[in-house]
Amino acid sequence: MHTLPQEDIEKRIQQIQQHIVDQKADACVISSLVNLYYLNGFIFDGYMYIQPDQEPMLFVKRPVNIDSHRVEYIRKPEQLPELLAKHNMAAPKSVLLESDVLSYNSVTRFQKALNMPELKSISGFMREIRSVKSAHELAQIRKSAISHANVYRQIPNLYRAGMTDLDLQIEIEYLMRKEGSIGTFRAFGENMDIYMGSLLAGDNAQEASPFDFALGGKGTDPLLPLGSANKILRQGTTIMVDMAGNYTHYLDDMTRTFSVGELPTEAHRAHQLSIDILAEISGFAKQGVACADIYHRAMEMVADNKMEQYFMGTTQQAKFVGHGVGLEINEPPVFAPRSREILQKNMAIALEPKFVLPGIGAVGIENTYFVTETGLEKVTLCEESIVVLQ
Amino acid sequence: MHTLPQEDIEKRIQQIQQHIVDQKADACVISSLVNLYYLNGFIFDGYMYIQPDQEPMLFVKRPVNIDSHRVEYIRKPEQLPELLAKHNMAAPKSVLLESDVLSYNSVTRFQKALNMPELKSISGFMREIRSVKSAHELAQIRKSAISHANVYRQIPNLYRAGMTDLDLQIEIEYLMRKEGSIGTFRAFGENMDIYMGSLLAGDNAQEASPFDFALGGKGTDPLLPLGSANKILRQGTTIMVDMAGNYTHYLDDMTRTFSVGELPTEAHRAHQLSIDILAEISGFAKQGVACADIYHRAMEMVADNKMEQYFMGTTQQAKFVGHGVGLEINEPPVFAPRSREILQKNMAIALEPKFVLPGIGAVGIENTYFVTETGLEKVTLCEESIVVLQ
Repeated sequence: MHTLPQEDIEKRIQQIQQHIVDQKADACVISSLVNLYYLNGFIFDGYMYIQPDQEPMLFVKRPVNIDSHRVEYIRKPEQLPELLAKHNMAAPKSVLLESDVLSYNSVTRFQKALNMPELKSISGFMREIRSVKSAHELAQIRKSAISHANVYRQIPNLYRAGMTDLDLQIEIEYLMRKEGSIGTFRAFGENMDIYMGSLLAGDNAQEASPFDFALGGKGTDPLLPLGSANKILRQGTTIMVDMAGNYTHYLDDMTRTFSVGELPTEAHRAHQLSIDILAEISGFAKQGVACADIYHRAMEMVADNKMEQYFMGTTQQAKFVGHGVGLEINEPPVFAPRSREILQKNMAIALEPKFVLPGIGAVGIENTYFVTETGLEKVTLCEESIVVLQ
Repeated sequence: MHTLPQEDIEKRIQQIQQHIVDQKADACVISSLVNLYYLNGFIFDGYMYIQPDQEPMLFVKRPVNIDSHRVEYIRKPEQLPELLAKHNMAAPKSVLLESDVLSYNSVTRFQKALNMPELKSISGFMREIRSVKSAHELAQIRKSAISHANVYRQIPNLYRAGMTDLDLQIEIEYLMRKEGSIGTFRAFGENMDIYMGSLLAGDNAQEASPFDFALGGKGTDPLLPLGSANKILRQGTTIMVDMAGNYTHYLDDMTRTFSVGELPTEAHRAHQLSIDILAEISGFAKQGVACADIYHRAMEMVADNKMEQYFMGTTQQAKFVGHGVGLEINEPPVFAPRSREILQKNMAIALEPKFVLPGIGAVGIENTYFVTETGLEKVTLCEESIVVLQ
């Protein structure tokens, strides 16, 4: 039924079982869609109940036809004690659960239903184990990146003089879907919202947004102030395209810059600095390197070029230069001044040194890399210089 | 800056202030994007702090440029006590917050930062006041419904023999975006996921899904098992189109049924029963009618026609025939056997009696209505019989 390698599933469950023991807990309950997929290869509405010494049990509300021999159908969490007893499982005194994605109401109801066990968070641990990818996961990201590049290469064919940023974005979305984009674009975190990615033209790149992405944009709706502003594309300005790499449910992340007509020299200089920063980082980043060191090296190069006031925004500046990618677009590690994470083999990361130039727009690129023992392998292979639209 | 009528904002804040008093609480904190928009006309990452006797205060993390004279910028909830003191506001002993959408971690951190006030939920109350719409909100839904119908009317032009359900869906999505669809489709609830709506062709309508929508579908990705399955559209089967009515950030909901070639008589009979159920309900539903009575009347008509086993699915059957619509697609009231809600003037509701016929597909329609003192006003005006594609 599902497409995940059995060995991936077994390894992940073993890691969680070990963590339950390490945390002196009795069980772990997984109920978010992303983590249910990660541990089963399919999703359902309900609870995956993991104990250190038994095969996991699925307590399922919907759908009615789960393909597993360890499943019990359930309407509400209050049935759990009875169903645990039926399977000779003791009521847990200490439970790990996903407390950064489950609502306060869900968690407190669940806790009460289980007669008030102690609660601990498994959220950080799940994000940590998900940050190091299996061969299967890396293959999915690589596949997304190939389709992603196929779409970006066709962008010059989509441009027509007089179109708005939104018009161009809609044409790109249509091409994405025809190329196999799954549509949905998963971002982690409360109050993070996005639709199919971001396209920023000209000074719209200076608009501050409520979301914690690299750049903002005014958007076209007050409930989604991000990206395209439905303004005519103007000569001498840039279009930064950072649309979703969601051609499988594993995401790559790639940004490229286009221009309407010719740009001033300063735009090309800043764009080249972004490319140089990525080349510099690619020269030393590998398994064992600290993520904070990568951020600091990028910032040194920005300062050497006196470009601090344009780096990662103007009005509002993002305080990171990259992040992990996977089932969600913003996974660990993060490349920020206080990151404590160390690069590990088979992490999938995106680095995005970007500049916003008033009167011109955003420039720079973003690539996705796999971390190896000896360096970084770039997987987003697509023209990196500014492509002129005409 | 924002587009909400000032009187709407003032009325809503007064309702919340009265509720704070009724609940013997000291303050209410709003931090979900949908409710921040509802109370401000714009969104931000942070906290809206409402007290019974003062103008609300905004504590904002992002963006940097909020247009309000009652704003304090903040990095983390631990700064709240100091900032409250700065504005001569006492630390609250009892706080209402959105405990069904905020994560357990956010709520417990917030509670600790405020020196452990008692917590109560404002979630149900917010959903309740949002269920009765203002004139401005009804106008937005009406506007969405007009564009929605414009798109559905063009569907026959999009069909080509040999295309898959997904191909047709992508053409509809493209048309939707060109017609002004905002893209994002908001559904309330943990583990509810959807992208631009649902298109169900033939027996794919029988596939059970983990989501609590009216019908399911296999989907094309294991992380979004819903809707189109990427299968060729076959002669003698139906295509049920229930794509998003998101042409403003207020949603209408409308389903129409198309067919590839001619259908057996039983399909037309079941489709007519759906239309008859809506006509019957429209004959008695108005302000003051119980939502459960509407569900029961629909079920009586289904039983009279011996169609119970095909109603709202086969493999898995939804236990409701309709729901409120607004900023989210699934607002109160719900039309289910145990609903305790009573129709109120200016509620916006969608009714969707649907049948799934094995070997043929889903039939029936869904319309959005406004509740008045004397009846229901239909706002989704578009051909209701089955439209043949060829």
